[in-house]
Amino acid sequence: MPLMKSWVASANDAAHPFPLNNLPYGVFSTGEEDPRCGVAIGDMILDMQAAEESGLIALTDEPLFEVPYWNDLMDEGPAVWAALRNRLTDLLAKGSADQAKVEPLLVPMADADMHMPMAVSEYTDFYAGRHHATNVGTMFRGAENALPPNWLHIPIGYNGRASSVVVSGTEVRRPWGQLKGPNDAAPRWAPCARFDIELEMGAIVGTTSDGPITVQEADDNIFGYVLLNDWSARDIQAWEYQPLGPFQAKATATSISPWIVTRAALEPFRCDTPEREVELLDHIKDCGPMLYNIDLEVTMAPEGKDATTIARTNYNQMYYSAAQQLAHHSTSGCPMNAGDLLGSGTISGPTKPERGSLLELSWGGKEPLTLDTGEERSFIADGDTLTLKGAAKGKGYTIGFGDCTGTVIAALDDPYAR
Amino acid sequence: MPLMKSWVASANDAAHPFPLNNLPYGVFSTGEEDPRCGVAIGDMILDMQAAEESGLIALTDEPLFEVPYWNDLMDEGPAVWAALRNRLTDLLAKGSADQAKVEPLLVPMADADMHMPMAVSEYTDFYAGRHHATNVGTMFRGAENALPPNWLHIPIGYNGRASSVVVSGTEVRRPWGQLKGPNDAAPRWAPCARFDIELEMGAIVGTTSDGPITVQEADDNIFGYVLLNDWSARDIQAWEYQPLGPFQAKATATSISPWIVTRAALEPFRCDTPEREVELLDHIKDCGPMLYNIDLEVTMAPEGKDATTIARTNYNQMYYSAAQQLAHHSTSGCPMNAGDLLGSGTISGPTKPERGSLLELSWGGKEPLTLDTGEERSFIADGDTLTLKGAAKGKGYTIGFGDCTGTVIAALDDPYAR
Repeated sequence: MPLMKSWVASANDAAHPFPLNNLPYGVFSTGEEDPRCGVAIGDMILDMQAAEESGLIALTDEPLFEVPYWNDLMDEGPAVWAALRNRLTDLLAKGSADQAKVEPLLVPMADADMHMPMAVSEYTDFYAGRHHATNVGTMFRGAENALPPNWLHIPIGYNGRASSVVVSGTEVRRPWGQLKGPNDAAPRWAPCARFDIELEMGAIVGTTSDGPITVQEADDNIFGYVLLNDWSARDIQAWEYQPLGPFQAKATATSISPWIVTRAALEPFRCDTPEREVELLDHIKDCGPMLYNIDLEVTMAPEGKDATTIARTNYNQMYYSAAQQLAHHSTSGCPMNAGDLLGSGTISGPTKPERGSLLELSWGGKEPLTLDTGEERSFIADGDTLTLKGAAKGKGYTIGFGDCTGTVIAALDDPYAR
Repeated sequence: MPLMKSWVASANDAAHPFPLNNLPYGVFSTGEEDPRCGVAIGDMILDMQAAEESGLIALTDEPLFEVPYWNDLMDEGPAVWAALRNRLTDLLAKGSADQAKVEPLLVPMADADMHMPMAVSEYTDFYAGRHHATNVGTMFRGAENALPPNWLHIPIGYNGRASSVVVSGTEVRRPWGQLKGPNDAAPRWAPCARFDIELEMGAIVGTTSDGPITVQEADDNIFGYVLLNDWSARDIQAWEYQPLGPFQAKATATSISPWIVTRAALEPFRCDTPEREVELLDHIKDCGPMLYNIDLEVTMAPEGKDATTIARTNYNQMYYSAAQQLAHHSTSGCPMNAGDLLGSGTISGPTKPERGSLLELSWGGKEPLTLDTGEERSFIADGDTLTLKGAAKGKGYTIGFGDCTGTVIAALDDPYAR
């Protein structure tokens, strides 16, 4: 598929993240106006509330865009998702008969503040990158026992905290927590000293299900993808995670990129999961290419200084697809809902510069990174801005995600000091 | 506090679960009518939507009871909670001037179907009963290593799945899952063969917070309590839970009793947590009696047969209070919301008949129970009905919870068979 041309001139650049081929969904506001749904096209945002009110978008009897989130569209199901994408393509394509009507509904992206694109129903985070699991397992349990026995058979995951999911740009406050280092005689209450990122993709469940679904059904139920940074307090995690998994270490914040890139926009970039070392059981067996070729990058910028790229990898490095994760999630009969967010797990490639967390990049603090500014980092310092970037690169066009960024600010004074 | 007398005669029995001292909050329907909020008084339910429409309840500018859940009241905060309880007490007390106006708004409980009393925002389950943790730890890791090193320092918890919480009476379908027994060479896909209960109390968070809160603030933020059965697939759990905790083993269903017993109704039954073996750090230190003296009981009834009481214990056996759990939950800055449900963790006492799960009662299947019917059980058989009962017993009155019951039905045919 080549670049599709739009009458919005900025969308026709081969390197622009938001060409007509993309049409990602976000929620924006300008000035004092309430947040509303919008679609990115080049440097502009199409105001969907206005488009619906004007009659240009009229797919359903009930309005879809009176609310500042995309869940109402999700609830309509795949046929309406496809109809909306077709209509948007018609309205914004070069030569559209409706250009004059649509043009007044465009808002410059530079004037917009972005908000959460959806109401997150529930949030699940997986651990489905083999290089990440091997790296972390090697650090914690030695190379011989790096992968847990179940790892090659099921996508290991845990339920996260939906209330802590925030949109890109939201500041993230360093948490306090109970922790116990290897040299501590007893646990202590302290600000996290090993605050970290996790480079992930987030898959958004688009339709409700109420029983076990197949991998193919799961793929059909995925509405779209975002970049996702699962901020992680490694010292809190090390003390708390046995035996029931991470809890407060992962509850401070999870940041997502502001634009939901639809599954339809990513179709040309589908690719297979890696070769299986052991055959998967039927309920999560591969049944087609369900990963995507998406280049990913992490940058780190100390306060007031230039950013350094600290990692580059690709979503195609995952062992399990989001469809396999969603199918596995449903096996117990667990009801899944529109707006559920599934974190892929940290995405690391096989070599050191492809690692998607500081824990791996600095090998638990033993090999600090040197930034382009000359500063050293094992974990995040106050004032650092961490940014995830993602793009699928087609022939003559790009499907971009919009940055997923967050600045870490200093911990509160001890909230429990009397 | 003695029994408070009501003009609803059935409420004046010392053994009745719903006297004027209780006034628990539920959601009910009769016939074809939509579910609505109601308050239990003796054998009757006061229709709160009707009471508000009639003007008998008028605490806020906006209506509270146009919705079939109690979250809108929760959002109003503790002053409005107290005002509502006072108003209900006035309306329903013996000698109330409003008896003639209220009487037509009462519905016989026998005619009502019960629904979920609140929209569950998120669900967290703890592991805060020392006897349970010791029993399970002994079975899995030996008596020397029964309690994990962090257990006496923080209430261990994990995020559960809010979408799987159901009201008492809902049938629970035995799940399929991936599991691997000690004699299996490889994991297999099978119906759960070790399906279990967990006897717990659920605390309902009533107000939103957005940063670390103290134990006292946490106690003030708790709206009420329900009985909670965290159905657990032990064979699925054993295979999946390392290293990130239980996932599909706990996602089939969690049942709660239909009536939210308010914190106000439980005030006379406050009691202390047990003596501390190690001093807790300030952020979760005890600051008053925040457990409750509530007698608990579990019964099991094979299909079409009489029930056998298989366990009796008390909520005062917990090591951590719900207030300590909520305070700990907030330490990372995790936003907590009205309608969040916190499972206490399985409540077991020190002796065998006080154990709150079949895993403990049958010691992992090695010591099957004999029911009064003569049947043996290590875990749940299809058709079995499991019921949790709870009551705080005052001088001349009872604060009951209403049963938390569920019947386990047979697994689906293999949903992935081709």
